[in-house]
Amino acid sequence: MADFVHRRQFTIEWSHCDPAGIAFNSRFFEFFDWGTWMLFEAALGVKPPDLAAAFGIVGLPLVDAGATFIAPARFGDVVEQSSRVSDFRRSSFDVEHRLVIRGELAVEGRETRVWAGRDPADPSRMKAQRIPDDVIARFQPQ
Amino acid sequence: MADFVHRRQFTIEWSHCDPAGIAFNSRFFEFFDWGTWMLFEAALGVKPPDLAAAFGIVGLPLVDAGATFIAPARFGDVVEQSSRVSDFRRSSFDVEHRLVIRGELAVEGRETRVWAGRDPADPSRMKAQRIPDDVIARFQPQ
Amino acid sequence: MADFVHRRQFTIEWSHCDPAGIAFNSRFFEFFDWGTWMLFEAALGVKPPDLAAAFGIVGLPLVDAGATFIAPARFGDVVEQSSRVSDFRRSSFDVEHRLVIRGELAVEGRETRVWAGRDPADPSRMKAQRIPDDVIARFQPQ
Amino acid sequence: MADFVHRRQFTIEWSHCDPAGIAFNSRFFEFFDWGTWMLFEAALGVKPPDLAAAFGIVGLPLVDAGATFIAPARFGDVVEQSSRVSDFRRSSFDVEHRLVIRGELAVEGRETRVWAGRDPADPSRMKAQRIPDDVIARFQPQ
Repeated sequence: MADFVHRRQFTIEWSHCDPAGIAFNSRFFEFFDWGTWMLFEAALGVKPPDLAAAFGIVGLPLVDAGATFIAPARFGDVVEQSSRVSDFRRSSFDVEHRLVIRGELAVEGRETRVWAGRDPADPSRMKAQRIPDDVIARFQPQ
Repeated sequence: MADFVHRRQFTIEWSHCDPAGIAFNSRFFEFFDWGTWMLFEAALGVKPPDLAAAFGIVGLPLVDAGATFIAPARFGDVVEQSSRVSDFRRSSFDVEHRLVIRGELAVEGRETRVWAGRDPADPSRMKAQRIPDDVIARFQPQ
Repeated sequence: MADFVHRRQFTIEWSHCDPAGIAFNSRFFEFFDWGTWMLFEAALGVKPPDLAAAFGIVGLPLVDAGATFIAPARFGDVVEQSSRVSDFRRSSFDVEHRLVIRGELAVEGRETRVWAGRDPADPSRMKAQRIPDDVIARFQPQ
Repeated sequence: MADFVHRRQFTIEWSHCDPAGIAFNSRFFEFFDWGTWMLFEAALGVKPPDLAAAFGIVGLPLVDAGATFIAPARFGDVVEQSSRVSDFRRSSFDVEHRLVIRGELAVEGRETRVWAGRDPADPSRMKAQRIPDDVIARFQPQ
């Protein structure tokens, strides 16, 4: 069980919105991405640009992403985003993002990412690595 | 069965790419969106900005979107995108997008959209409407 | 003289950055736009989505924009943005944005916008309108 | 005089547009950037991702950008973009972009970029280099 939750609040900006007056769907995947970086900063105590070096990895490449749009997010809406790792596996993990507007769930997001280092056989490529136990432990309830 | 396929080719631009040198995930949801507009233009013969008026709808709002990232799309890569409706239901439908780079499937996308008109009870809101049979017929193999 | 200054702080996100590892230039124009909305909210006490209705205008369309890039903004950099109207004319005005990173000016932005209402002769078009004196007064030093 | 002009045609997409139904200003700076890459590919015969290596530079960093918005670009509008280097100096140059819609000039863009290599004194930094004469010659009228 991974129960560490990162919460942030932000506002839907004019530039996020499309001619229907609501945040365009691709923007939410930016919100999810940033939520994951901030979640890892909060859990591991490492700033996003230092994460790779601190753990000897190349990054956390995304292999799957999805979103369910339940209610529109309009220009000026204040969004409460909560992000958590819902599942850790050997070398990959899932992140869940919930975006709440005026107390109602508006968007649910999901990402599957890999804990990726350089491939020893070809340093120009990435290869999934085992997620260290002490990383996973930092996301557990204290 | 809905077998009408729209194909387009485009290039991964510098502005699509992130510090890893590959197209950032949110950009693919822009590619999917535009693929759907062009698929509907090709099947129905109506330009995107005229689609709503031509069919008496408000739009085709997205209720679910997802992508599987199989191989990276790098700056300068030529992408072959094919888009098709994989399933029509009473008032919603699924679109599949396949992005192929150098002959290999790189990204698969999926969208679920609603055929939405104004809600007669509250014109400020949208309401799912039955997709006309002649719209669905245009996506069938001839 | 218009001396009301709005300040905000934000962080350069992964999705803002290009393969050079720095925020891509177009992103700054989003930062400028949002700075202007927040400046007007701070000066006039009206939330961005309510601004047009509150003042009987259609919006504040941009007619010219520019930026000077002095130092790169990197992933994770904390940006201090200050935004002010540098000149009010009869029906248009200039906004200046200064983005400071680690105490050094990194980017200067400039926007020229119009106070625009509907054209009485053709309501589908916009027309520049005289900026009310009490609007301008709200941007003066108290 | 530098008279080589690159022309391309593209369509304003839904995702480019804001709640006013027109392409949001930051998008034009993406259009300018891509126009410059394609102009250099056309003039020099080198694909964008190979440009730096082919000329021993790090890139063409932008030091100033601007745009004048004359007429709105709406969803579905077909844009004719022409891009040219308007001035070459020792180590920097200006690019002009003209975007024409339905035969009328809609947007003018301008970029100032530097021909930048690694700083010998600090390879983590860039330093302006003299633009080779044979590069400049490729932009001259034949």
